[in-house]
Amino acid sequence: MTKLKNDTLIRALLREPVPYTPTWLMRQAGRYLPEYNQTRARAGNFLALCKNPDLATEVTLQPLARYPLDAAIVFSDILTIPDAMGLGLYFAEGEGPKFERPLREEWAIRDLTAPDPADHLRYVLDTVSQARRALAGSVPLIGFSGSPFTLACYMIEGGGSSDFASVKKMLYQRPDLLHHILNVNASAVTAYLNAQIEAGAQVVMVFDTWGGMLSHAAFHEFSLAYTARIVAGLKREHDGVRVPTIVFTKGGGGWLEDIAAIGCDAVGLDWTIDIGAARARVGTRVALQGNLDPAILLSSPEAIQREAGAILASYGRGNGHVFNLGHGISQHTPPENVAALLETVRGASASYH
Amino acid sequence: MTKLKNDTLIRALLREPVPYTPTWLMRQAGRYLPEYNQTRARAGNFLALCKNPDLATEVTLQPLARYPLDAAIVFSDILTIPDAMGLGLYFAEGEGPKFERPLREEWAIRDLTAPDPADHLRYVLDTVSQARRALAGSVPLIGFSGSPFTLACYMIEGGGSSDFASVKKMLYQRPDLLHHILNVNASAVTAYLNAQIEAGAQVVMVFDTWGGMLSHAAFHEFSLAYTARIVAGLKREHDGVRVPTIVFTKGGGGWLEDIAAIGCDAVGLDWTIDIGAARARVGTRVALQGNLDPAILLSSPEAIQREAGAILASYGRGNGHVFNLGHGISQHTPPENVAALLETVRGASASYH
Repeated sequence: MTKLKNDTLIRALLREPVPYTPTWLMRQAGRYLPEYNQTRARAGNFLALCKNPDLATEVTLQPLARYPLDAAIVFSDILTIPDAMGLGLYFAEGEGPKFERPLREEWAIRDLTAPDPADHLRYVLDTVSQARRALAGSVPLIGFSGSPFTLACYMIEGGGSSDFASVKKMLYQRPDLLHHILNVNASAVTAYLNAQIEAGAQVVMVFDTWGGMLSHAAFHEFSLAYTARIVAGLKREHDGVRVPTIVFTKGGGGWLEDIAAIGCDAVGLDWTIDIGAARARVGTRVALQGNLDPAILLSSPEAIQREAGAILASYGRGNGHVFNLGHGISQHTPPENVAALLETVRGASASYH
Repeated sequence: MTKLKNDTLIRALLREPVPYTPTWLMRQAGRYLPEYNQTRARAGNFLALCKNPDLATEVTLQPLARYPLDAAIVFSDILTIPDAMGLGLYFAEGEGPKFERPLREEWAIRDLTAPDPADHLRYVLDTVSQARRALAGSVPLIGFSGSPFTLACYMIEGGGSSDFASVKKMLYQRPDLLHHILNVNASAVTAYLNAQIEAGAQVVMVFDTWGGMLSHAAFHEFSLAYTARIVAGLKREHDGVRVPTIVFTKGGGGWLEDIAAIGCDAVGLDWTIDIGAARARVGTRVALQGNLDPAILLSSPEAIQREAGAILASYGRGNGHVFNLGHGISQHTPPENVAALLETVRGASASYH
């Protein structure tokens, strides 16, 4: 494989010196880009786009043609695994993800098995390989998955929810069943991320979107323990090159030290925590990724400059910062505001390195 | 006024010794109770019920007829103030609160004035007086309001939202306008809570439901600063008796020390923080109220006993704990599970006092 021309992301994740703070944006290939919407229309819908490696590769590269980003992230969805398990992922227009066959019965839960990524998730691995080739070493490619708990939330509830009452009911009333689901999910995510690494992903990230709605004790038992098992089971090197891992728990600011202790290289932060305070808490154990409120991208270039500058200043001098949003970019973001953000970070961050 | 027969809540809020941990539940008069649904049907709808002091008093007392609760909370809504400002509060069936005339234009924002509670919020004050009389000193009556920021969220957005994008856009692009709204709201809430105290509320609570979705810096500037102004402006005594204040920021676990420093007597906690860790952080500055995940009440008496016991044990021995949920009770809660919770806390907490 070609040597990376821009390896600032990898180096920042490993807390090595970099000339500026590398930046990528969660959901950077998405609906705020007119060219994305055109490709999606050609595919028919979001899921068809995910499952078409040619078109998924195309949209993976789109934001890099526009912006000086320091990474690409494979275009996919966090819920590919339960879909491969046979739960039937679909997206109703204007709504979030849904499953045709959510886990409602004990027999269905007991029947659950981890899918072989080479079989049912082939389309993701093909996208990873194609995107890696197309990038030609310009910037690293990030692979990802939802966390075992976040997958379980959608698998049990059958879709998004404001309180995930069914999940929590199972958690407190039948913890054995939830642990069974989480066990299967953890094996599935480990195999899936390792397959992405073998297919060409140079960084992998676990998205724990819903761990933050758990109690302190439940988060540790039902979310973090399984993410830790994944991190322990990941290939840390491929072709002789380190493959850094990022763990992001939305709403996980209270458990930062615990997340930083599971062996990942970097911890993603949402925008509710001051990144300087977070850095003081984790010390030199991990790099930190974040943490601009994506809503700031809906405002003006002046506000973006001020708020991005405040994050760089709060992190301060030294290694280990990857700039990102604290959550996925909004579909209503004016593309020129993304340009303003990236210009600001690239320019203003040099003085901290 | 009659002397309180059960003043455990007041004493716990003031960190004085109590024989057991007093308990009340956010939204304890609500849809999980069949008798509540009957009264609501008689009123016509939720808002009509809020605006009818006779029926609002009736539902305020309903949970006390069933359960050994240590407080009543006046039946009302957090959005009465913007309704009194003329924004036109309504509840579409199966949806959250909405405003007919949200704040969309600068002139409307500049025109905003704090309503005189004795005039446009008379119905709430009447409910407070009637409920206080009806309680006849059995337990204290809690009055409440939404926080200035939380009110502003609904006033600007016109209803609930998953990301409150309009609010945040204003926050970053026109902070002067948002500050103007928050100034008016802070004056309005202060006058409203003081009027509730004069009408008979023996404790007051500020609900900052949405402060937790702000960045660290924005929370301090746009939410906490205004809640602090309210706390500073509240009557702390009425009829020679102390009136304790509780401040609850959902998702505010990261800012606990800062919230505890604004002069309130107690801080409400959601369920994501370990209450023992929270106690270690705030020391003896404030009492703590919380923090059972309301979803636990959907499970079984055994799980409720275990989880409530864990919270009591985590807080540990000594003064300053008020047991509550970490958010409002779910409408799907089986009423017998509430009985199991209250029995557990009353029985198990004595050994910590």
